[in-house]
Amino acid sequence: MKVSVFRKEHFNAAHRLFNPSWTDEKNQEVFGKCNNPKYHGHNYDLVVEIKGEVDPETGYVIDMGLLSKIIQRCVLDEFDHRNLNEEVVEFKSIIPTAENIAIVIWERLRPEIEKHLELSVTLYETERNFVRFPANG
Amino acid sequence: MKVSVFRKEHFNAAHRLFNPSWTDEKNQEVFGKCNNPKYHGHNYDLVVEIKGEVDPETGYVIDMGLLSKIIQRCVLDEFDHRNLNEEVVEFKSIIPTAENIAIVIWERLRPEIEKHLELSVTLYETERNFVRFPANG
Amino acid sequence: MKVSVFRKEHFNAAHRLFNPSWTDEKNQEVFGKCNNPKYHGHNYDLVVEIKGEVDPETGYVIDMGLLSKIIQRCVLDEFDHRNLNEEVVEFKSIIPTAENIAIVIWERLRPEIEKHLELSVTLYETERNFVRFPANG
Amino acid sequence: MKVSVFRKEHFNAAHRLFNPSWTDEKNQEVFGKCNNPKYHGHNYDLVVEIKGEVDPETGYVIDMGLLSKIIQRCVLDEFDHRNLNEEVVEFKSIIPTAENIAIVIWERLRPEIEKHLELSVTLYETERNFVRFPANG
Amino acid sequence: MKVSVFRKEHFNAAHRLFNPSWTDEKNQEVFGKCNNPKYHGHNYDLVVEIKGEVDPETGYVIDMGLLSKIIQRCVLDEFDHRNLNEEVVEFKSIIPTAENIAIVIWERLRPEIEKHLELSVTLYETERNFVRFPANG
Amino acid sequence: MKVSVFRKEHFNAAHRLFNPSWTDEKNQEVFGKCNNPKYHGHNYDLVVEIKGEVDPETGYVIDMGLLSKIIQRCVLDEFDHRNLNEEVVEFKSIIPTAENIAIVIWERLRPEIEKHLELSVTLYETERNFVRFPANG
Repeated sequence: MKVSVFRKEHFNAAHRLFNPSWTDEKNQEVFGKCNNPKYHGHNYDLVVEIKGEVDPETGYVIDMGLLSKIIQRCVLDEFDHRNLNEEVVEFKSIIPTAENIAIVIWERLRPEIEKHLELSVTLYETERNFVRFPANG
Repeated sequence: MKVSVFRKEHFNAAHRLFNPSWTDEKNQEVFGKCNNPKYHGHNYDLVVEIKGEVDPETGYVIDMGLLSKIIQRCVLDEFDHRNLNEEVVEFKSIIPTAENIAIVIWERLRPEIEKHLELSVTLYETERNFVRFPANG
Repeated sequence: MKVSVFRKEHFNAAHRLFNPSWTDEKNQEVFGKCNNPKYHGHNYDLVVEIKGEVDPETGYVIDMGLLSKIIQRCVLDEFDHRNLNEEVVEFKSIIPTAENIAIVIWERLRPEIEKHLELSVTLYETERNFVRFPANG
Repeated sequence: MKVSVFRKEHFNAAHRLFNPSWTDEKNQEVFGKCNNPKYHGHNYDLVVEIKGEVDPETGYVIDMGLLSKIIQRCVLDEFDHRNLNEEVVEFKSIIPTAENIAIVIWERLRPEIEKHLELSVTLYETERNFVRFPANG
Repeated sequence: MKVSVFRKEHFNAAHRLFNPSWTDEKNQEVFGKCNNPKYHGHNYDLVVEIKGEVDPETGYVIDMGLLSKIIQRCVLDEFDHRNLNEEVVEFKSIIPTAENIAIVIWERLRPEIEKHLELSVTLYETERNFVRFPANG
Repeated sequence: MKVSVFRKEHFNAAHRLFNPSWTDEKNQEVFGKCNNPKYHGHNYDLVVEIKGEVDPETGYVIDMGLLSKIIQRCVLDEFDHRNLNEEVVEFKSIIPTAENIAIVIWERLRPEIEKHLELSVTLYETERNFVRFPANG
């Protein structure tokens, strides 16, 4: 049977929810205060889950130090203390909702994790609003 | 692939565990101090999970503000600062254990959520005792 | 210089805010939903602080196990899974607001703690509403 | 003896640390990644402490609902989902460090709280960096 | 449909990561500071999940008090305030990584839980490193 | 008026409570399971408070990055993933209770912090047992 291992990381970023194909009125109606053109921000908590067999030699599914470095390089170095809309390339064309940020993080991490390991990402935008990709079984 | 989104809400309520078809002795034996006829209470934390596809126009699975309002109307307005046994209609005939409260909340929310979206409810009675309905995969 | 040591405990109770010398209307106006005659409840977190010199033989200000037993006997045994208004003697004549509960707990603990040690009590009614007695400085 | 009561609130905002009287190099050297001209952001947790005597009629130092409304009106309505540097008037001329944000919040709340009550403000910029104004005794 | 119920417990222990079939150099390379021969330690948080049908007579999947006693007897009595490598029999031959500790706890609890109930174990080694066995779906 | 700034750090260590001038029986009687000769361990959370005036040029009481580096060098580099009794020099002659660990950390940090700034240390041994040195007011 497989084990899931989880690593929690953290980044602080500014963002804005805005669909450029809509009028200002429609953006305001749908996104409300999240549409502020001068941005607002969050302390994002990121939990990365890796599912796989335990290596009997190390007792590890994956080395947590290695996983932490991969997250640092692929995500935190480009997201932390940044403006997601203006400084993270994927959000030039995708709205940086929590859902989309989680998917983008998953797509950045997937090629860095060995294929036999399953990957999921949970992203806390606030303590009360969070998302998981992919959703559980 | 689907995304899960989670919204955390909160209510404070009194309750008592008691099966009216049993003797007082049996109630005391099974429910112990939770059987106190004068009630005790909890700060309940409620996490509602909605699973579905991300709408490419909004970047949302569901509008969290809308979800919060549904929870407010269907659950919090009738549970918060109430006596669950005496003031919530379902618990006239069901014991308000955490398991049953979670099921009742799920049944209240299910008709309010679009059919193509999956719903689950996690209820924290205390930090150390919590339940999820339906159970994962 | 002195050290403060803190012990965190927990109890679940029902209560109601109500001043019997007032009309129902005034009670409702002042206490709102906290005035529900059928009660509501909370998970109370209690942090007891003891301030004193460190005993060089033990490295302790006070034995935390002993402190925990004192709190259990003087507070938890009578507050946990109880209705504060109806089952705790002090609240026959005092309204069980967080402020008054903290003062009552302090008065129950003070005679049990050696005189040269200072005592304060922090009570969390919810994560967002809490009180400390006596106030700092 | 006095009681302290605490109310926890929350806001999400963007900010940037920058001293306009310095060169870009000096700003970068002192503020590092917090100096990003495109902003970053935080989930700020705000704990407001009011110290005073308990009113024997209500059992309250202050009505928490009233306190929450004052914080909403004086702070959250202008800080939440905003860019502190560009949209909050005080930060036109003061750098929005956690220290200064706490002082500005205190100055906004002080005139709204009755004079015989003492006020302090604790602001969490992240779980690991927080400030209190005024500092304890 | 089934409900999951969760019980959170806690233990404090010392451990060391070390593979006796490897050289000291290889152990240091793989396990780094976790390989310290004089041990280090953790506050482990343990969440036990039981999945099953709700008993209509009690409203319970399982009596949480009973579950807590089983965890106390099978796990905490032998793990709490102990050196896992030297004092817990399974870790004479298995490296006490979080993954392996979770599997060992699962194996100890499984025979004590009725067969029709499903069991999983989540173990927090720190707030940022945690594991689940078996992995979800 | 002064501001307090707080920085939270973390270390994991093994320890044992033991007074070498006592018999084994007395050690067992006073320290109970904390006296286990094979050690146990904790995830220690450390909160360092610095109290001072805000520098009008930076908006800082102290640069949090600098404070974090001082804590890393003076405390974490020697405490993290270590056996406090055997590997930290002060605990050759002092019992590593939470009280004494907090005092030792304060003594290590005090010479590194500018004289006009006040220093205090809060150490969480577990979520339920914690200490502060020096005690408030």
